[in-house]
Amino acid sequence: MTAQPNPRAGAAVKAADRAHVFHSWSAQELIDPLAVAGAEGSYFWDYEGRRYLDFTSGLVFTNLGYQHPKVVAAIQEQAATLTTFAPAFAVEARSEAARLIAERTPGDLDKIFFTNGGTEAVEHAVRMARVHTGRQKVLSAYRSYHGATAASIHLTGDPRRWANDTGAAGVVHFWAPFLYRSPFHAENERQECERALQHLEDTLVFEGPATIAAIVLESVPGTAGIMVPPPGYLAGVRALCDRYGIVLVLDEVMAGFGRTGRWFAADLFGVTPDLMTFAKGVNSGYVPLGGVAISGAIAETFARRPYPGGLTYSGHPLACAAAVATIHVMEEEGVVEHAARLGEEVFGPGLRELAERHPSVGEVRGTGVFWALELVRDRETREPLVPYNATGEDNAPMAAFAAAAKERGLWPFVNMNRTHVVPPCTITEAEAKEGLAALDEALSVADRHTTAA
Amino acid sequence: MTAQPNPRAGAAVKAADRAHVFHSWSAQELIDPLAVAGAEGSYFWDYEGRRYLDFTSGLVFTNLGYQHPKVVAAIQEQAATLTTFAPAFAVEARSEAARLIAERTPGDLDKIFFTNGGTEAVEHAVRMARVHTGRQKVLSAYRSYHGATAASIHLTGDPRRWANDTGAAGVVHFWAPFLYRSPFHAENERQECERALQHLEDTLVFEGPATIAAIVLESVPGTAGIMVPPPGYLAGVRALCDRYGIVLVLDEVMAGFGRTGRWFAADLFGVTPDLMTFAKGVNSGYVPLGGVAISGAIAETFARRPYPGGLTYSGHPLACAAAVATIHVMEEEGVVEHAARLGEEVFGPGLRELAERHPSVGEVRGTGVFWALELVRDRETREPLVPYNATGEDNAPMAAFAAAAKERGLWPFVNMNRTHVVPPCTITEAEAKEGLAALDEALSVADRHTTAA
Ligand SMILES: Cc1ncc(COP(=O)(O)O)c(C=O)c1O
Ligand SMILES: Cc1ncc(COP(=O)(O)O)c(C=O)c1O
Repeated sequence: MTAQPNPRAGAAVKAADRAHVFHSWSAQELIDPLAVAGAEGSYFWDYEGRRYLDFTSGLVFTNLGYQHPKVVAAIQEQAATLTTFAPAFAVEARSEAARLIAERTPGDLDKIFFTNGGTEAVEHAVRMARVHTGRQKVLSAYRSYHGATAASIHLTGDPRRWANDTGAAGVVHFWAPFLYRSPFHAENERQECERALQHLEDTLVFEGPATIAAIVLESVPGTAGIMVPPPGYLAGVRALCDRYGIVLVLDEVMAGFGRTGRWFAADLFGVTPDLMTFAKGVNSGYVPLGGVAISGAIAETFARRPYPGGLTYSGHPLACAAAVATIHVMEEEGVVEHAARLGEEVFGPGLRELAERHPSVGEVRGTGVFWALELVRDRETREPLVPYNATGEDNAPMAAFAAAAKERGLWPFVNMNRTHVVPPCTITEAEAKEGLAALDEALSVADRHTTAA
Repeated sequence: MTAQPNPRAGAAVKAADRAHVFHSWSAQELIDPLAVAGAEGSYFWDYEGRRYLDFTSGLVFTNLGYQHPKVVAAIQEQAATLTTFAPAFAVEARSEAARLIAERTPGDLDKIFFTNGGTEAVEHAVRMARVHTGRQKVLSAYRSYHGATAASIHLTGDPRRWANDTGAAGVVHFWAPFLYRSPFHAENERQECERALQHLEDTLVFEGPATIAAIVLESVPGTAGIMVPPPGYLAGVRALCDRYGIVLVLDEVMAGFGRTGRWFAADLFGVTPDLMTFAKGVNSGYVPLGGVAISGAIAETFARRPYPGGLTYSGHPLACAAAVATIHVMEEEGVVEHAARLGEEVFGPGLRELAERHPSVGEVRGTGVFWALELVRDRETREPLVPYNATGEDNAPMAAFAAAAKERGLWPFVNMNRTHVVPPCTITEAEAKEGLAALDEALSVADRHTTAA
């Protein structure tokens, strides 16, 4: 499954990258991007012949793994037929993708506005909510990531907002439930849920509900740490939105399309938002695509009044054809059910078993193929293995953990003091176990940085 | 070149579109999207067997026309090899696209940050300028379009900004040169240029140059009316930016990659910006792609300090492979030179000849395959054929013109009181002439709404 090693070709790819590619979120001279030669299923490999099991799904988007033959074939066929067309027309791949997505979204989210990716989806959802309500302010959670364009980065809670924060975007941040580091000093899930809803309602009331267009929330916060909300929380947020006439936007860019063992994470809780954003898993990232699923009431606002937003590639035929094929594959191969079963039978038990043996693991949480290990210096105090937003020497324990995983052929997802276990939803049980075994060894390296060592 | 008519298939595509696709910039129930069955070269066709010569290039992005076989083959091949990969790695298609683009951009714009489309390119350029200068305010032109995400829509001058304008984005608009409707009461190009530069410098001085991060300007404003700036204007703006330490961002999303008969419109004037945004023509829109070309000085700012921006699909391999193939085709087939020749020998003379005979044509302006006809009620007063931002009955004369063109097999680009002639850069001379003949007849319909009728 790997090609012949070809270090010369790799060196050329790397040289052109270093000379000409400007990378996301990076100090350009302090990074050393690995040159990747190929990928298939749950693995990718470099030009030296080293193969890695991908526990990241790229940036949590290759839900079908790399190079699924049916999606590749669909892309090739659409390319041969009609690779691109302007957004103001009706085009088969676009119509069909919208129909298949609308069939799967909860409730009456039956109209689909397509974008190129996640951040644009969030931007357009916010715009729809503002025009629909005639209000400006938007609430979002501190522990969140919503994208990098101006509206989305202001909604974002994580430190990537800081360098971009003008303080004038009309965003207010609140605290969502996170029992392990409870902002509410709660002792159990029920208490965390109640207090989080109380905190949100208090915040709404003091902000002035009539000034608030929308609450934007990841159904299950992803990059910020995969905190599956306690039962009742999302339903409680839904009720608050209904009470105060606020639009509920659930951001399912990362959690949607099978990741949680459901089509959408909202389905775990039986909650229907007014707007739902998606991207990534919609076509496994094979072609850039995102979008917003829109409720009947909000669609009605724009029935006879123009929607003041758009983009050149809305409903790009090639991207939509990949989505159509992805959804068919997910149905035919039972990918959503497979993800649910992996969570219950492999990742849940396997990760909890690792947690028992490794003092560096403070908590295991997740569902489906969407898991986080919270790494700590001390299980009692729950002090993170590295400080919030650490760099350089301060971040050395996490860097050592990641290096150890890579040495063992496992490519880990690392964010602050956490590692996320987010392989393709199609990973086999054997591959999952191979990954857990490598993780086991890498966690021993993390253990050395704990107070138990 | 058209398929067999198949109205039943067309009706199904249309029905699913109306049920599930939410369209850009539209009142959803007041639109009637044409179902498109296929496209090739400069033509597309519907399910009834009607064929249209495309004078729009989609939204001015299919610079190579539809379904160029070499770009289609490159997409198919990349899909078979490595259709997607995360942005933090070095990947051949990404490295090669960056190298080929950097080779063609002016001056030292040698680092390429990839996005999914135009608006993201503008957002990231503004972020780079703000961090680089440590200043917040950005200047842009009233007659402009820069995209629909929050920062870009605030930069935008056209009425699509209005419904989104929070008044708090740190954007100040100024007037760029436009001799036909001179904001400066100028009588010739030289005067227009001088006065426009004086106006810009006055505005800079009164805003406070030390508060201004960037001037963002389309090298040749596109959607706003294809106003090729007078000789000396862009060089003058460059000099002002240098004098005051302001970053010059040229937005070449529409004007770049051959449209003006040069690789970039900036080349018409020998001007090198600090940041240049691109999208559309970079791969003829076959796969969503955009980006920012970055100067050495700004790249240096982010050499050892993280760039605070990114996106999941930065440098998407499939999109980059399409860019690599597009650039090779443009070289091999002399597309840029062909565009320049078409402008000089076909569109320039042909459109000026139409203007002589049609009282509805107030002005013809453009270069390459980038032309605008300013339609007027009265050539003396220059009153536009329809009012600024007209809808419904007020817009009837332009609607009649567009319908007449379509009846004659020509799909026209229409914006306010203008029609733009923006076919693929690969259009043949015979096709161009066929289009001009249809335009001739449609202009007779516009003539009926002039004072001369
Ligand atoms: C929940 C969520 N929203 C939005 C985004 C932004 O998506 P994109 O990078 O495609 O713009 C992300 C990306 O990770 C995400 O996880
Ligand atoms: C000059 C310019 N900038 C930016 C954009 C926005 O590009 P996109 O629609 O790909 O976001 C456009 C789109 O027409 C444009 O013409």
